Amino acid sequence: MNELAALSKTFEQVLEELELPKEPRLLYEPVSYTINNGGKRMRPLLVLLGCKIFSEDISQALHPSVAIEMFHNFTLVHDDIMDRAPLRRGKPSVYQKWNDNVAILSGDAMMVKSYQSLVQTRKEVLAEVLDIFNLTALEVCEGQQHDMDFEERDDVSISEYLEMIRLKTAVLLAASLKLGAVIGGTSEENAQKLYVFGLNAGIAFQLQDDILDVYGETAKVGKQKGGDIIANKQTYLLIKAKELATKKQTSELNSWLNGSISGSEKVEAVTALYQELNVRELAEAEMWKYFNRGLESLKQVQGSENWKNILEQFATNLMHRES
Amino acid sequence: MNELAALSKTFEQVLEELELPKEPRLLYEPVSYTINNGGKRMRPLLVLLGCKIFSEDISQALHPSVAIEMFHNFTLVHDDIMDRAPLRRGKPSVYQKWNDNVAILSGDAMMVKSYQSLVQTRKEVLAEVLDIFNLTALEVCEGQQHDMDFEERDDVSISEYLEMIRLKTAVLLAASLKLGAVIGGTSEENAQKLYVFGLNAGIAFQLQDDILDVYGETAKVGKQKGGDIIANKQTYLLIKAKELATKKQTSELNSWLNGSISGSEKVEAVTALYQELNVRELAEAEMWKYFNRGLESLKQVQGSENWKNILEQFATNLMHRES
Repeated sequence: MNELAALSKTFEQVLEELELPKEPRLLYEPVSYTINNGGKRMRPLLVLLGCKIFSEDISQALHPSVAIEMFHNFTLVHDDIMDRAPLRRGKPSVYQKWNDNVAILSGDAMMVKSYQSLVQTRKEVLAEVLDIFNLTALEVCEGQQHDMDFEERDDVSISEYLEMIRLKTAVLLAASLKLGAVIGGTSEENAQKLYVFGLNAGIAFQLQDDILDVYGETAKVGKQKGGDIIANKQTYLLIKAKELATKKQTSELNSWLNGSISGSEKVEAVTALYQELNVRELAEAEMWKYFNRGLESLKQVQGSENWKNILEQFATNLMHRES
Repeated sequence: MNELAALSKTFEQVLEELELPKEPRLLYEPVSYTINNGGKRMRPLLVLLGCKIFSEDISQALHPSVAIEMFHNFTLVHDDIMDRAPLRRGKPSVYQKWNDNVAILSGDAMMVKSYQSLVQTRKEVLAEVLDIFNLTALEVCEGQQHDMDFEERDDVSISEYLEMIRLKTAVLLAASLKLGAVIGGTSEENAQKLYVFGLNAGIAFQLQDDILDVYGETAKVGKQKGGDIIANKQTYLLIKAKELATKKQTSELNSWLNGSISGSEKVEAVTALYQELNVRELAEAEMWKYFNRGLESLKQVQGSENWKNILEQFATNLMHRES
């Protein structure tokens, strides 16, 4: 993992060099607060890895990798307002620390900043880079809208759910790899295969998130265990459980979803139902199906086998994370 | 004005062809609601006029002109949330018709849509077009933040106010012209002179807005006469009045600003103070100073004299509007 650590270090250096004006303070302070609040930096690493597979020189992918991380953080800032999520990575989210207006406007500024970083790449690929980014950005908005729409519904199907996480989460991971690949100078075919890998791996990661929320190690998860259950959040596990439940189980599940008892008692009861219905295993099977489908696509990419392996290892480690 | 009407028609046709997905409905319906809600279309016309001065062929400026109008409308959607402005062009603003979340997210989608339209121009100028647009978009965010900051202060100076309206309003008008000019293939020098015209005219237009809010013909203004006075909004008139007021006038002004009496009584009283202090005339003088400074810059532009005249006439008509 030395190569990955080196890429990571390079990214952090480029990020540090990013110029942010000091004034107006309420516009730019939340930007640094957010972008310097850690995070796994998964997406910028995918940009750089996508580039490395086709080109040793990643200089033209550096600013675009910052763009992707900035864009991702912009979505978090706005999503946190919409979801009323007071915490982000263990610290107050922007709207909570300041207010909604500050979060709206500094989020907007982050979106523009991400375009400013994105265009700092070689001219020959600029139009394609922008097309990929714009399409993806719009899809991410669509995914967030679907997610919010789901809160008002209790008849979301598994296929609708998978489409939502494809848009909300997976396309940005896929586009990160594809942007790197295009900047690295590869063919449309290779770039697309890498995209398909990222898309399937991204869906697998989100399914993993759903599973870890219930079954992860609390200390590492860094948030309340079973938070999705407490919030009645539509997840693969809940939707699958609803799909498979007998009449009796459905009525029991509904009594927990609509009832007034929450906290660990609710989590334990719903988890017991999940166990009866075997939904953890079903979710894990679905997750690995997507991940392996992704790996199949990665195998077909014509590029540096060394960097392909590093990417595969990076993704596989994410699949085996415990929080 | 036949040429202008023709440009306007062309713009509306290109806008009509803009493809907006139907789903998710709550993401895209507010976009069409906003973009089809009229407006003067001043900015896209400036893009097309800026191009016409240097090139009869404006095909490469059409989508960018849609981009500018889309971006402007995005700022309105988000600003209306921040300013809690329930009406926009006589209809409920997006957050009012739907809710804050819908306005945040559909605004975000409008920003991305504007980039999608912006990049539909000729490759040779793409990087420059993006640089101008990104810089301007960020400045507009800064202007909005300054405007919000001013609400918390009672010591805003005239020069701070002018800087705020430069950022919040004028740079987008200036950039519209400059984008058209760059796409039209002119030199950096000409493009910059057109920018300087737009910047000064833009400041003049905003000063005109401040004046019309108090002295415009109510029917045409389409909003409550003296709305700025009622809302204690920082305008050129109010700041200038504070600057010039004697101790006695200051205390009278403050009693109205901090008092509980509002509506037409407050408007009349503050307007009477404005009259004592001559601030309308001072604002008009400032406005014409900026406008004429802009015209000086326009004169130096090397391009079609016919289209320069049309642009000058267009801007002059805006200066003589009564609402």
